[in-house]
Amino acid sequence: MALIVQKYGGTSVASPKHIENVAKKVIAMRNQGHQMVVVVSAMSGETNRLLALAKEISPRPRPREVDVILATGEQVTIGLLAIALEAQGCPAQSYTGEQVRILTDSAYGKARILDIDAVRLRRDLSDGRVIVVAGFQGVDADGNITTLGRGGSDTTGVALAAALGADECQIYTDVDGVYTTDPRVVPQARRLDRVTYEEMLEMASLGAKVLQIRSVEFASKYSVPLRVLSSFEDGPGTLITSEDENMEQALISGIAFNRDEAKLTVLGVPDQPGVASRILGPVADANIEVDMIVQNVAEDATTDFTFTVHRNDYEKAFEILQRLAKGLGAREVVGDRKIVKVSLVGVGMRSHAGIASKMFRSLADEGINIRMISTSEIKISVVIDEKYLELGVRALHSAFGLDAA
Amino acid sequence: MALIVQKYGGTSVASPKHIENVAKKVIAMRNQGHQMVVVVSAMSGETNRLLALAKEISPRPRPREVDVILATGEQVTIGLLAIALEAQGCPAQSYTGEQVRILTDSAYGKARILDIDAVRLRRDLSDGRVIVVAGFQGVDADGNITTLGRGGSDTTGVALAAALGADECQIYTDVDGVYTTDPRVVPQARRLDRVTYEEMLEMASLGAKVLQIRSVEFASKYSVPLRVLSSFEDGPGTLITSEDENMEQALISGIAFNRDEAKLTVLGVPDQPGVASRILGPVADANIEVDMIVQNVAEDATTDFTFTVHRNDYEKAFEILQRLAKGLGAREVVGDRKIVKVSLVGVGMRSHAGIASKMFRSLADEGINIRMISTSEIKISVVIDEKYLELGVRALHSAFGLDAA
Repeated sequence: MALIVQKYGGTSVASPKHIENVAKKVIAMRNQGHQMVVVVSAMSGETNRLLALAKEISPRPRPREVDVILATGEQVTIGLLAIALEAQGCPAQSYTGEQVRILTDSAYGKARILDIDAVRLRRDLSDGRVIVVAGFQGVDADGNITTLGRGGSDTTGVALAAALGADECQIYTDVDGVYTTDPRVVPQARRLDRVTYEEMLEMASLGAKVLQIRSVEFASKYSVPLRVLSSFEDGPGTLITSEDENMEQALISGIAFNRDEAKLTVLGVPDQPGVASRILGPVADANIEVDMIVQNVAEDATTDFTFTVHRNDYEKAFEILQRLAKGLGAREVVGDRKIVKVSLVGVGMRSHAGIASKMFRSLADEGINIRMISTSEIKISVVIDEKYLELGVRALHSAFGLDAA
Repeated sequence: MALIVQKYGGTSVASPKHIENVAKKVIAMRNQGHQMVVVVSAMSGETNRLLALAKEISPRPRPREVDVILATGEQVTIGLLAIALEAQGCPAQSYTGEQVRILTDSAYGKARILDIDAVRLRRDLSDGRVIVVAGFQGVDADGNITTLGRGGSDTTGVALAAALGADECQIYTDVDGVYTTDPRVVPQARRLDRVTYEEMLEMASLGAKVLQIRSVEFASKYSVPLRVLSSFEDGPGTLITSEDENMEQALISGIAFNRDEAKLTVLGVPDQPGVASRILGPVADANIEVDMIVQNVAEDATTDFTFTVHRNDYEKAFEILQRLAKGLGAREVVGDRKIVKVSLVGVGMRSHAGIASKMFRSLADEGINIRMISTSEIKISVVIDEKYLELGVRALHSAFGLDAA
């Protein structure tokens, strides 16, 4: 007998009919002899509807009260799922975040889980009940309702699995697993049977948005095996765990890409200590998030400083750099908003220096010029012109043997 | 400086616009120097929408889970009203029933308030905040969410007023006060400036449904002055308090009536101890509520036993009596579903025996036959044929000097 935590997102609980189907899936798993904890999101569209009501009253509603309002979305779903389970003959009990109690800090709208009291849940589990918990929400030390931010239901699932020592945390979504790359770009993309936490983190943050990145960090920290599955079709999904001996030794697990980037370069900056922070400080102060940063070795006592931002922030960042340029003694500011980032991800690359050269050669063979390069232990990212995105991803997918047989 | 509790029902908070208007009213009262606690219902239609979702999954959903779902209706409203107050520059804080904490028993769907912890509310009040509390809901000793049943927001308002020792509890509705009778039947009906708790209880239970009867009982028990006002127009409303020396000495405060009754009579029942309970026991077992009960003195060792029920229960009650009649040795069962009940209510009648005869004469003058009579300390009720309802109520309204000048 295992203890399984399942999490169903908004599209999986979009209507009473959907919720009845979720109940069926939960009961099928329970009938295999498992203890079940189920975390649910708000019915799809509900969070946006509630937020719109608040914004109709005030463009900047007080975050504490927004959380009071948004938390009702999941509260409705837990009641409905518990009713559906009981209607199908399965004893169930619903819990809000406060009732569990999922203790968080007081950062309304983006609270972090500090502690979970599992005593009451354990008692209900040993009574044979299915536990249904509202995702995305908690309560602070003063009893105020908090929410974890969008996608926070995944984090609730993983945190509960960690607190209860669950055998697996299953995240049900509208895709049937994690793919080697986006199948809309590469029809030959394969579903991965297993992937490591680190790979998943690199892929999620790079745009293959199957799971919330915080939930993967959480799962990694507490070694909770995480499985991504489809709510709508049967299948084994993708298991996300620590690297182990038996793991299939692919060099590359997947190819992530991000269409939403733009790059900016400050040319001819004096190569002095503190220059990078004098450039990025004002950018960060304007709440612009910076992704890749590249600075090459200096020539003639000057250097070029390049970074990428979200495409929506391009104009604002460009203006900031224009203002800074003179004070820095820089020659010129240039930029390009028609670029994309493509990344190879794989724990196997740690020990294989040849991967980068193979990557660059594959792109060159297709006539694709590389604008920027940056690397980490398990990832190589390049920036290329937007028009080459599909061509580049397909070439790499094939070159690294990821195409489905 | 007074402490005022205000309660706004579903039609008063039906949309963000309505909620902004409620905020204006609250702030206007606060600007007069009062401390304010505001209790709100779910936006109109919301409770029915949520209940329909639950019923779509199960015709008989588990009551605990129904309460989890329904409680979200008020939770949305408190957040929205707090946002509206802050947007208009007024510091505010929302509270769910659990957060207050409004402790109830565990009778889901019709829970009763056992205790209110006013410590946190008092602290916020002395900080100058307007307190916004979700009506209709509480929490039991095990932390389960409960609801007080339909109209329970009135009870929440009165209970909070009692716990905080408020100077007045103001119930905002879609009518501007309590009337001498239904203005749709008698256009000359007058708004009452004051009425006693007892009169209000008799009028509410008899069909003039302005306030939930439980909230009036509560107000009476804890001597909370209660005021009924309109959310949509200005005016003093009707104040409901204990009887006092200065109260205007009207004999009759109002005329209530009920169109939904039907009467049943068991004729020729042996006049023996225990017969009444042998008749009413099976009726009660079938969950049929009985209103008036009349049994006259016996003649020839037999008597006639008559009672009224809700018109919807008439057929079921008739069948039960038919089955019972033989065992009771009764002669016959007869009934009439086309009857109505009309009641005079007034604390003044305690000391005026002449009221009954004046009432009966007024009806006789219009050719209206009286089918049943029953009386209490401050009420005389008669059953008459349905077709005479309007005629009878108007005649009594005029005879007792209730018509507007």
